[in-house]
Amino acid sequence: MKTLFQYNWQVRNDWFAWCEDVPEDELLKARIGGVGGILETLFHIVYMEYSWIHSVMQGKAEFEQEPFEAYRSVRQVRDLSIQFHAEVEPFVKLWSSEMELKELTLLRNNGEWITYKHGEIMRHVIAHEIHHIGQLSVWAREIGREPITANLLRRGLFD
Amino acid sequence: MKTLFQYNWQVRNDWFAWCEDVPEDELLKARIGGVGGILETLFHIVYMEYSWIHSVMQGKAEFEQEPFEAYRSVRQVRDLSIQFHAEVEPFVKLWSSEMELKELTLLRNNGEWITYKHGEIMRHVIAHEIHHIGQLSVWAREIGREPITANLLRRGLFD
Repeated sequence: MKTLFQYNWQVRNDWFAWCEDVPEDELLKARIGGVGGILETLFHIVYMEYSWIHSVMQGKAEFEQEPFEAYRSVRQVRDLSIQFHAEVEPFVKLWSSEMELKELTLLRNNGEWITYKHGEIMRHVIAHEIHHIGQLSVWAREIGREPITANLLRRGLFD
Repeated sequence: MKTLFQYNWQVRNDWFAWCEDVPEDELLKARIGGVGGILETLFHIVYMEYSWIHSVMQGKAEFEQEPFEAYRSVRQVRDLSIQFHAEVEPFVKLWSSEMELKELTLLRNNGEWITYKHGEIMRHVIAHEIHHIGQLSVWAREIGREPITANLLRRGLFD
């Protein structure tokens, strides 16, 4: 579990560095698929991880979900990622197999109550980020740039 | 570990079903990002999982890697997926935490020897598939179709 979070955090930071060399209008441009565009998709990844792990699973304060409009620069989204990461990382580091089946009951937007297992939510957060990063890789090629590698090997995650 | 493989297999099968309603020329069309196009990316996912788990980790026979040219229909790629799945699934089902740190030393294409942990390879295979599926979701939108959901929740994976 922890390894895939570490992987996501490494890849996300690589993408923030990648963004530094890309004109801001390309990062903000509305694109097909994903969430809005390159920077908004990164914002979405950052926000969703925090929302599930900090607010929903731990019941802590929700992010005043300002619209993406308030975070329209790489610096702002990366700063938000750093801020949220400090809240998320301790929970991930303390994860243990006993937490897998802990239940969480939520009211869905459609008015139904639903019960999730903590392990289910953690894997959802992992897959969510990898999926959206896959979308970024297509958009990177569309603007003629090499995407960040999705390779998990040789990242020192098992050293 | 097993849950994320189950997730990938469900999502992959949903994509094969999705392909049934899409004209074949759209599935075969060369696209930017990913591996060639929609069907070739699915072929690549199927092949890579088999290659790592069947051939590399278990040292069994390699797939005579016929080029994708020999699998240019949904039926053929799905049949290959079913065939390979029968080889891959038992290994995943028997996975246990004791296998995490088992080492595998390989000669890379660049002539260097490298040692991976089994747990590292398994997570690489998981992330590899989710990443490429993210690419399919962009291409689906580009041809005006709703992609298969990447949501891991409510798939019955923890029932």
